[in-house]
Amino acid sequence: MPAKDNLHALFYPETVAVIGASSAPGKVGNTIVANMIGAGYRGKLFPVNPKGGEIEGLAVVSDIADLPRGLDLGVISVPRQFVIPSLEALAEIGAKSVIVITAGFKEVGGEGYHLEQKIIELCDKHGIALLGPNCLGMMNTAVGVNASFAAGHPNPGSIAFFSQSGALCVAILDWALGENVGFSKFVSLGNKAVLDEADMLEYLNNDEDTRVILGYIENVEHGESFLRQARKTCLNKPVIMIKSGTTAAGAKAASSHTGAIAGSDQTYTAAFHKSGVIRVGDVASLFNLAQAFSSQPLPKGPNLVVVTNSGGPGILAADSADRSHLTMAGLSQKTIQRLQEFLPSYAAFYNPVDIIGDADAKRYRQTLDVVAEDPMVHSIMVLLTPTATVEIEKTAEAVIHTAKKCGKPVFACFMGKNRVRKARLMLMEAGIPCYAFPEPAVRSIETMYEYYLWKHRPEPKYARIKGDKERALKVIRKHEQRNEPEIVEFEAQEVLKAYGLPTPQTSLARSSDEAVAAAEEIGYPVVLKIASPDISHKSDVGGVKVNLNDAAEVMSAFKDITARAQRMRQEAYIAGCLVQEMAPPGVKEVIIGFKRDEQFGPMLMFGLGGIYVEIMKDISFKLAPLSYQDAFEIVREIKSYMLLKGLKGEEPVNFVALEEIIMIMSQLALDLPQVWEAEFNPVLVNHERAIVADVRLTLHLKDEQ
Amino acid sequence: MPAKDNLHALFYPETVAVIGASSAPGKVGNTIVANMIGAGYRGKLFPVNPKGGEIEGLAVVSDIADLPRGLDLGVISVPRQFVIPSLEALAEIGAKSVIVITAGFKEVGGEGYHLEQKIIELCDKHGIALLGPNCLGMMNTAVGVNASFAAGHPNPGSIAFFSQSGALCVAILDWALGENVGFSKFVSLGNKAVLDEADMLEYLNNDEDTRVILGYIENVEHGESFLRQARKTCLNKPVIMIKSGTTAAGAKAASSHTGAIAGSDQTYTAAFHKSGVIRVGDVASLFNLAQAFSSQPLPKGPNLVVVTNSGGPGILAADSADRSHLTMAGLSQKTIQRLQEFLPSYAAFYNPVDIIGDADAKRYRQTLDVVAEDPMVHSIMVLLTPTATVEIEKTAEAVIHTAKKCGKPVFACFMGKNRVRKARLMLMEAGIPCYAFPEPAVRSIETMYEYYLWKHRPEPKYARIKGDKERALKVIRKHEQRNEPEIVEFEAQEVLKAYGLPTPQTSLARSSDEAVAAAEEIGYPVVLKIASPDISHKSDVGGVKVNLNDAAEVMSAFKDITARAQRMRQEAYIAGCLVQEMAPPGVKEVIIGFKRDEQFGPMLMFGLGGIYVEIMKDISFKLAPLSYQDAFEIVREIKSYMLLKGLKGEEPVNFVALEEIIMIMSQLALDLPQVWEAEFNPVLVNHERAIVADVRLTLHLKDEQ
Repeated sequence: MPAKDNLHALFYPETVAVIGASSAPGKVGNTIVANMIGAGYRGKLFPVNPKGGEIEGLAVVSDIADLPRGLDLGVISVPRQFVIPSLEALAEIGAKSVIVITAGFKEVGGEGYHLEQKIIELCDKHGIALLGPNCLGMMNTAVGVNASFAAGHPNPGSIAFFSQSGALCVAILDWALGENVGFSKFVSLGNKAVLDEADMLEYLNNDEDTRVILGYIENVEHGESFLRQARKTCLNKPVIMIKSGTTAAGAKAASSHTGAIAGSDQTYTAAFHKSGVIRVGDVASLFNLAQAFSSQPLPKGPNLVVVTNSGGPGILAADSADRSHLTMAGLSQKTIQRLQEFLPSYAAFYNPVDIIGDADAKRYRQTLDVVAEDPMVHSIMVLLTPTATVEIEKTAEAVIHTAKKCGKPVFACFMGKNRVRKARLMLMEAGIPCYAFPEPAVRSIETMYEYYLWKHRPEPKYARIKGDKERALKVIRKHEQRNEPEIVEFEAQEVLKAYGLPTPQTSLARSSDEAVAAAEEIGYPVVLKIASPDISHKSDVGGVKVNLNDAAEVMSAFKDITARAQRMRQEAYIAGCLVQEMAPPGVKEVIIGFKRDEQFGPMLMFGLGGIYVEIMKDISFKLAPLSYQDAFEIVREIKSYMLLKGLKGEEPVNFVALEEIIMIMSQLALDLPQVWEAEFNPVLVNHERAIVADVRLTLHLKDEQ
Repeated sequence: MPAKDNLHALFYPETVAVIGASSAPGKVGNTIVANMIGAGYRGKLFPVNPKGGEIEGLAVVSDIADLPRGLDLGVISVPRQFVIPSLEALAEIGAKSVIVITAGFKEVGGEGYHLEQKIIELCDKHGIALLGPNCLGMMNTAVGVNASFAAGHPNPGSIAFFSQSGALCVAILDWALGENVGFSKFVSLGNKAVLDEADMLEYLNNDEDTRVILGYIENVEHGESFLRQARKTCLNKPVIMIKSGTTAAGAKAASSHTGAIAGSDQTYTAAFHKSGVIRVGDVASLFNLAQAFSSQPLPKGPNLVVVTNSGGPGILAADSADRSHLTMAGLSQKTIQRLQEFLPSYAAFYNPVDIIGDADAKRYRQTLDVVAEDPMVHSIMVLLTPTATVEIEKTAEAVIHTAKKCGKPVFACFMGKNRVRKARLMLMEAGIPCYAFPEPAVRSIETMYEYYLWKHRPEPKYARIKGDKERALKVIRKHEQRNEPEIVEFEAQEVLKAYGLPTPQTSLARSSDEAVAAAEEIGYPVVLKIASPDISHKSDVGGVKVNLNDAAEVMSAFKDITARAQRMRQEAYIAGCLVQEMAPPGVKEVIIGFKRDEQFGPMLMFGLGGIYVEIMKDISFKLAPLSYQDAFEIVREIKSYMLLKGLKGEEPVNFVALEEIIMIMSQLALDLPQVWEAEFNPVLVNHERAIVADVRLTLHLKDEQ
């Protein structure tokens, strides 16, 4: 990560050199110079080309060495073989930041990959903030910087956008010009050799011109710094992102595109959720949300009120609200009384408040003022159908009036197009999002409310769990030495014990008498299992007998199991039998596991055993480390949670004990990076306690890497 | 339902009278006359007003009686109290069709309700095709009819639209004018006193100007005719509808709006599915789909190919496709070879076919021609990012060229706005849907493919199941006489037997000896249950013992059960015990039920017993009558279907036997309209057979109606 002030030099350069500048219109090296001038850049601009001469009225510098020392920004657009020499020359004069437009690096593999490594080394050594290679460039509307070869300059605005796809930059820029959407910063990340999305988040978090951050990414390479920066930024301002390559087909396309290896989509969902990033699936939603977030306050609760001059659209809005996490506000008695004072008797006073087709702007204004004052109302949607009598522009004024003073988010949905065009422009200019139909308005308010909830949830609390890490590591080292990736049975139990995890009471009995004695101590019923290091699949040799209720049964089971095992596996060493407590009736089986993600680290998983996980795919996920709140949620996010809570008078399971095991699993995942996957399966839980009945750990052995 | 030619008179009137015509601009009675003239109506138009004079240059008729006999269309826009007299006068002169604009009928209740009844009676008597009351009017662009008080005339087009909400008509008309969307017919249904959505579907099915039918409804009152007409129409042309009031909040708004009682949303989903209607949730989707369906052929398979000049948007398209029911086509070896002949080596030859940012129109055309010829490709999406080098309009021409000759659906996604504006207009004019982003394009193609599948599925086959209806009716009549809505136990078994449903082998034993004899005949193990008409909850008196394995156990169970029952319920008559076969191990419990919907009749339900239905809500639904295909699907649409199919080497259940029971349930629902709800729970099914172990029928008693 380059020095902070070098990032500032990138975005607010006072001196800019374009390496590979050209006088031929249409050439990239010409477009960049023209764009800088066209954007109104007021700093010093140096076209660089060995041929010298003049470009766009500026004298050409023929050698990088002749540029001023401590240059703020060098933009490189030269054939690939000249990129490294140019970068070296820029480093030589102490350039603070560089954009490499040129393509042909990591994304093409081979030599390109090595050249990109060279870029990284140079930037590391000299602390250069470098964007690209293989990118479109960057714009900062606040100071008239357009260091890109894009067509057109975006308007200034409070939305920052960064994208891993240059093509998407081109498309969005063109779209934004047509839709009159403005930007603060506009950044094409390219191959992310040096600067990546985490750096952008960190920088834009402190950028006063930016109220909302939008991003398009195909992968995250440094999960840990992404999570840290994203979380910090999201607590300050909303971050809305598209992560593409979400699906099998998409990932295939992504991996050939910029050499990105798309992580599992579930992990990205968990990572975005953990860090508060709002994830959307399409570009239209990205900008709908950007406009909403950049102009309206967050709703402080779920209650939406809809004021409408027509029934049908009101129903559509109520339908949308009901499908969302919002609720249609129940208006207070006082509000209804106040509405009755001036609304016609045939109006609908509950929500949606239907002020009827003959409503004029005054009726809209009065109604809006009253509902906005109701403390039960958290957000307001104004629906207008362009009937013959409605005063469209005057109603827009009424909406603006209410929105300005009420401190609650106000959204407009002026249905139609032609007749509402002017009003819509008025509203947008006043910072009130206006939609043609209710559905997207509801979705925007819902997302803002969810962000509000995320932002205001209590600070996550993490457990201080101290396991006997050394004891666990001993087991792991032994397996590493033997080159055995799977840790099961005795040795896995050893790891459980090191972390104080509750396991079923178990004794090794070497004789039938010892077995009875153990059973008496544990208490009937018990389970007997063959104990032999040489027999891994116990049931294959009839090595398990459950529900043994008295001494006679235990004695006969012991003899039966050991004899049969000896007969079937003559070479095996039989230590005797394990005598184990029996799971009491009403016990539920759950699975707690984790899998380590290359980018984001351990991802914990929770679900009910058997078909619930396997067939119904009823599983919840969270990235480690888990807070207490996370453990609380992971248990309750599955559909079959009701089974744990207890049906028909059943007592709920001991959730505290269960969540404790989940927290320990999270700690274990952090303590033991050698463990690649782990599964407690089943964990037996009833209203009294939770125990880990079986466990399997899988190591990532060095020689597999 | 009025005579067919009266509907034709409504849409193609040669004589139109406006009752309540006014010379005051802005008044509804004036707007209608002006709209008829403005739309270019060439028939005879009669403003009617007792004041006489002249309106919009036309001589006013002062009395309805003076209008020509057999008037094609009368449009009534008079105060409510004059509506019935006007309608009577129109009936008197033999008017064929009428539109009642005036509001204040069923939707306000009370007197309004009765007046609407009067309208219905008059129309029934005289066979008048009546639209409304409480509506905006109707337009037919083919003959310049605009019998509405809407602002503006829609352009002609091949899309028909009808709506139960007049406000939505207003909004959509204004939106369509702005978006340049044209209509064939545009109908505001109002209160649907006479003509409803089913009549519209029937008429529009045969309307040659209409290629796609769009509708907005809040409820369906006549389910049976809706299903029949919708199905017939959907086999001919696509019908796309919004059904609002889908959710609790929406339904509340709907019921106060036009007095509609919204049916259960699941029933509507099942009804739309059965009849082939494409259901959408929002207005934007309605028109996206309308444009796709009205201009492109249906894809004959799921395989989509994406041709793009940029990677990022290509990934977004592939992601969308993967989330849909489409698949990214695998291109044939031949296609890839042909592409390699002219595409640059760094292009991506798999799908998305990335022809790289420097692609010109020629490269697009060549690529499109090649992929369109691949028999594995069923639909084509052309993605274009407006890079500096791309030839935007020329590429649009290339797309049009390929689309015209290939016979496969072609969709364009020209990203951005300003720079692609012209090309987009060219494409739209040539009938190629063009979107700003890939997501909606994929959704449109997916929906068209699903419609293709629906349209080409085999003709549904229905079973001829003949139950002993009389035997079942006897039981029902007895309950009706006793005013007992619930049929359970013995008497419910009687209904099962009447329909030949397989039940567990059961004998009544009056003594322990008889019980043993019965058990020997059935085969061990057996179940014993107390047999007493006075004991309904058997387990409350310990009246059930399962898994009895020999004569001794049966004998002791008999004595135990009867003695205990006698002790606990001294007043009860104890007939003895029922001896029943025991469900074999590995049996699955499923639930088969139905519930009668007011509008759409019996809705069948299927799911796995216990938590699957109750907690996981894993239930599938179909409207009766079920075809064999429906029975096949209802079993396979639940998530837990895998459990029936068998896990880990388990044999699958006998699906034929299970589906047979479902078909019988469907027949029973049709045969016995007195039964309001029925549930076979559990139905026990294993690899050999399926039996109905318990049943409950609920009658709709007359005095409850």
